[in-house]
Amino acid sequence: MADFVVIGLSTFGEVLARELYERGANVLVIDQDKEKVQEIKNFVTRAVIADATDKQTLAKIIRSNVDAAVISLGESIERSVMITYFLNQLGIKKIVVKANGTDEGRVLEMIGASEVVFPEADMAKRLATGLVQPQMEDMLNLTDRYAIVEIYVPKKFVGKTLRDLRLRQEYEVNLVAVKQTIPEAFIAVPSPDFVFKESDIMVLLGEQENLEKVMK
Amino acid sequence: MADFVVIGLSTFGEVLARELYERGANVLVIDQDKEKVQEIKNFVTRAVIADATDKQTLAKIIRSNVDAAVISLGESIERSVMITYFLNQLGIKKIVVKANGTDEGRVLEMIGASEVVFPEADMAKRLATGLVQPQMEDMLNLTDRYAIVEIYVPKKFVGKTLRDLRLRQEYEVNLVAVKQTIPEAFIAVPSPDFVFKESDIMVLLGEQENLEKVMK
Repeated sequence: MADFVVIGLSTFGEVLARELYERGANVLVIDQDKEKVQEIKNFVTRAVIADATDKQTLAKIIRSNVDAAVISLGESIERSVMITYFLNQLGIKKIVVKANGTDEGRVLEMIGASEVVFPEADMAKRLATGLVQPQMEDMLNLTDRYAIVEIYVPKKFVGKTLRDLRLRQEYEVNLVAVKQTIPEAFIAVPSPDFVFKESDIMVLLGEQENLEKVMK
Repeated sequence: MADFVVIGLSTFGEVLARELYERGANVLVIDQDKEKVQEIKNFVTRAVIADATDKQTLAKIIRSNVDAAVISLGESIERSVMITYFLNQLGIKKIVVKANGTDEGRVLEMIGASEVVFPEADMAKRLATGLVQPQMEDMLNLTDRYAIVEIYVPKKFVGKTLRDLRLRQEYEVNLVAVKQTIPEAFIAVPSPDFVFKESDIMVLLGEQENLEKVMK
């Protein structure tokens, strides 16, 4: 069973700790706020009220063979830096730290963070994509150029069959699957005779610029 | 050209406003903090120092035909509620609001938010998946049951051909593409003779439980 430590019970830390525990992991959480620790204690393996910037405290509570430690403090990057440094000294292999900006991220990596996550910035970029291209439901960037997107069937495709559309020849994109919303159904391998409705969502794989051509 | 308003220049709001502007949209930002408004003013269409909880101010600055308004305040849900209410009265069709928890989200929807986003919670769930299943690079949930995942080739598959693996018959999953990391290459339609290396990433589509069987 995997063993994790979550330091800091902001929204990010709290959701993370509960999710890990729900998925069967051992989860130790540390926060200075007595109330937050009380609230979560029944949903994790162990919850400790402590100041994680104190090296001796950390050494006492955390075993060095944990699979990963996640530092999720609020605005205070200085405290995240010190805790990263101490966890590194304790021999913890994987240290994930939440940060706001790229400068903070670089400092944390220099101190020994194995991974820095930027929840606000990442989600803002995703939302920007959704607002600029409202027909896009969701996307997965595979490489700098290739992506998988979920888009509502463009008007120009409605009523046509998959065979008619010649997606590979005309757009150089692959149809990966179709999600029907009315009635709800998932079609992993649509047949060439499949007729697209306005309420269907196409899951397409291709280069970004070709995917954009489909959406236009 | 699309027209957006971003209220509140936290990390989320700032990244969002810049991204929208970079993608060619008109972006008006509003914040009370003079310094933040100064910093962003060259990277958006218009930046205004104002208290967005004041209805008259909002009515003067914002045109009702904007494509969407995004409210991205810090912790203060009360202010987001009032601004959502005023924007709704101004006739703005799409109002997206950043929130922390699901209770907050429900209140905002009752007041008239068209969409509520939870950056911290969403990213925490994604990180939890990454920590529990470290071979998983990224994923896209298509429905409650179906997903597309990027995973490093499991040891049991290394050295075998796509034909050998019989992914559809044995696991009921479809190989959508292969990402090679050494050297970097993207193969949208791998041939049946394709031989998997340890450094390759498989892009697989299937039901979550079948995808988990592949990873085991």
